[in-house]
Amino acid sequence: MNMQDLIKPLIQKNRSKIVLIVLDGIGGLPVNGKTELEAAHTPNLDALAKESACGLHIPVAHGITPGSGPGHLGVFGYDPIESQIGRGVLEALGLGLDVTKADVAARCNFATIENGIITDRRAGRIPTEEGKRLTEKLQKKIGKIDDAEIIFAPGMEYRFTVLMRLPWSLQHDSAMITDTDPQEVGKIPLLPSPISENAEKVSKIAGKLIAKAQEILKDEEKANFILMRGFSGMPRIPSFSEAFGLKSLAIATYPMYRGLAKLVGMDTPAIEGSVEDEISFLKQKYDEYDFFFLHVKKIDSNGEDGNFKGKAERIEEFDGLLPEILRLNPDVLIITGDHSTPCLMKSHSWHPVPTLLKSPYVLGGICNAFSERECVKGELGILPAINLMPLALAHAGRLKKFGA
Amino acid sequence: MNMQDLIKPLIQKNRSKIVLIVLDGIGGLPVNGKTELEAAHTPNLDALAKESACGLHIPVAHGITPGSGPGHLGVFGYDPIESQIGRGVLEALGLGLDVTKADVAARCNFATIENGIITDRRAGRIPTEEGKRLTEKLQKKIGKIDDAEIIFAPGMEYRFTVLMRLPWSLQHDSAMITDTDPQEVGKIPLLPSPISENAEKVSKIAGKLIAKAQEILKDEEKANFILMRGFSGMPRIPSFSEAFGLKSLAIATYPMYRGLAKLVGMDTPAIEGSVEDEISFLKQKYDEYDFFFLHVKKIDSNGEDGNFKGKAERIEEFDGLLPEILRLNPDVLIITGDHSTPCLMKSHSWHPVPTLLKSPYVLGGICNAFSERECVKGELGILPAINLMPLALAHAGRLKKFGA
Repeated sequence: MNMQDLIKPLIQKNRSKIVLIVLDGIGGLPVNGKTELEAAHTPNLDALAKESACGLHIPVAHGITPGSGPGHLGVFGYDPIESQIGRGVLEALGLGLDVTKADVAARCNFATIENGIITDRRAGRIPTEEGKRLTEKLQKKIGKIDDAEIIFAPGMEYRFTVLMRLPWSLQHDSAMITDTDPQEVGKIPLLPSPISENAEKVSKIAGKLIAKAQEILKDEEKANFILMRGFSGMPRIPSFSEAFGLKSLAIATYPMYRGLAKLVGMDTPAIEGSVEDEISFLKQKYDEYDFFFLHVKKIDSNGEDGNFKGKAERIEEFDGLLPEILRLNPDVLIITGDHSTPCLMKSHSWHPVPTLLKSPYVLGGICNAFSERECVKGELGILPAINLMPLALAHAGRLKKFGA
Repeated sequence: MNMQDLIKPLIQKNRSKIVLIVLDGIGGLPVNGKTELEAAHTPNLDALAKESACGLHIPVAHGITPGSGPGHLGVFGYDPIESQIGRGVLEALGLGLDVTKADVAARCNFATIENGIITDRRAGRIPTEEGKRLTEKLQKKIGKIDDAEIIFAPGMEYRFTVLMRLPWSLQHDSAMITDTDPQEVGKIPLLPSPISENAEKVSKIAGKLIAKAQEILKDEEKANFILMRGFSGMPRIPSFSEAFGLKSLAIATYPMYRGLAKLVGMDTPAIEGSVEDEISFLKQKYDEYDFFFLHVKKIDSNGEDGNFKGKAERIEEFDGLLPEILRLNPDVLIITGDHSTPCLMKSHSWHPVPTLLKSPYVLGGICNAFSERECVKGELGILPAINLMPLALAHAGRLKKFGA
């Protein structure tokens, strides 16, 4: 039985508050003997770790490096293997698009075609501004195909995203359509082709879209064709409110993370600014919700850049702001990450992620700091990310007894 | 593959002895910095922990607070989620009834009905003595319905339990019958209704039983009707002997725990007395069995009452008796609980349960005491309760090699 089915009949509501802080990419590896968390001066996190339940979570499975999608789904309490997010949808969420249950999303490239043969899959890597001009041109001339609304959104350089919005909610397999990118130059582009019966309609719309785009782009020097891949609809998962009985708010400045939170039905107002601004927003909305997801991005960005000092500084910055969060005295406070991003590797990694759970109902007194090596000693042990949500609910008094 | 299927072909018999001590509700949380186990003076348990394999078991799943049923099934090596025990059966076991595979059990209330409308779901909370008189009255007049023997057993106040004993073993879904209690006054009682085809027969018997009871109780002032819920049969699980090849004895003074042990096919003689008496009984029967489950109840009771000192004293009492058990020198001795009952919470909780396994084949030398925080360090780690039985068998030399 999966975790959500197990806990659903046990859920009870109360007035408790749960705050989940995701320090994106927090986990690290030693450089000159110390990890980023160990090198950073973090008196507040360390004091909190001393009185909290600590451990490390495994985002997906041992040895598996998660993308941002599976990383967040896991800490949100969704099985990241069962609830995979299609590439088209993830790209659309990252661009801040409002993806609905009626949308099929696809990642697209502008490309160059000559005599029916693809000569450049990236249209000479046209600049972002040029890509923006071209998507606007397409959007102007293509508003609708058959009964689907077509929404274009520019990305970086030659990349863009298309939403095909149907007048009804999709079937689970309506977006099962093959990629049109042959992945090699010197080949003809492939036709979008339905893998399931329910995808025939959308597949035809995609075919017409490609033909129309070719007509509209025919006089462009480089970007005279489009390639589509990663056709996908929203994953069919219960909302956070259905699964956990929580009214929830996402506080994130990057569209991708708001998109991931929206996917599970959190409220996701568009906010901007620093971590300090995020915490101000948390305070402002504190009475209105049961559950708060607060996302801190720049720790990961520095990890990706291999900037050890930068990552440590961003951790210190958060540490300095932590007392503001503690002052709210949430019933349950979890501080963790969606995955590790060791500066040593300049990328996401599979390493278990330091995790701290503050509540009156923990042992505490085991770990001396918030770091990878201290969390290994902790009372939470090394646990799958998906188990953080039932622990949060239990500590908040929101789960009834199982069996008599 | 589930654990029992995995180990079944590996089981080999020998003359080893396994003793499993369940200190009910042993796990706790700090009050003034110390948990109940930490506050108690337990030189014998602490010395044993030093030379044992220690760890913490998770009874059901992270964040899940188990009732006594799932708590015990887990440490007995049964998946507590797959092998759920119906409310009716659990109630019957708690009353000390001899539930067979031919029985459908239901929890019942005496209720008050006026002009077909329920006016009191608990018949004015009649005293236990009155409930006893009424069940005896019903038993006298209702011995059989159709071909089912009907067995009444009084509980506390207005509560009682009914067994409908058929002349054959039940199908797995023969007890899938809806509750008759509408859970609100001012409503008509519901009719028992079969959810599966195999439940039709029992459902009809329940319907006739309710009608007969109404006739028999019609002149009672308050208790003139009965409500039935939690229809259930014995879970269909292999016996302890089939699953593990062990001849097993339960030593428990409370009917509920004997009932749970009986459910998995242990011998369950009715015994009374103190923990000391239980240990005397263990000694007396030591040559006759392979496996002994010894249940210590009062630690949990003090936890439920929030009596920190009382719980610590009960732990100390057991500690004082431990040398008596050690003198038997069992091949494997496991000391654990079925769940945690922190005095701080005055209830069962989801917290992992301290566990100690003594055998010549452990590392030992890791933990300095038998407590939650010391067990976190231990060589068993934090593991699902269901894995304790294969560990017990392995340490007893009762599991062959898997694969060549």
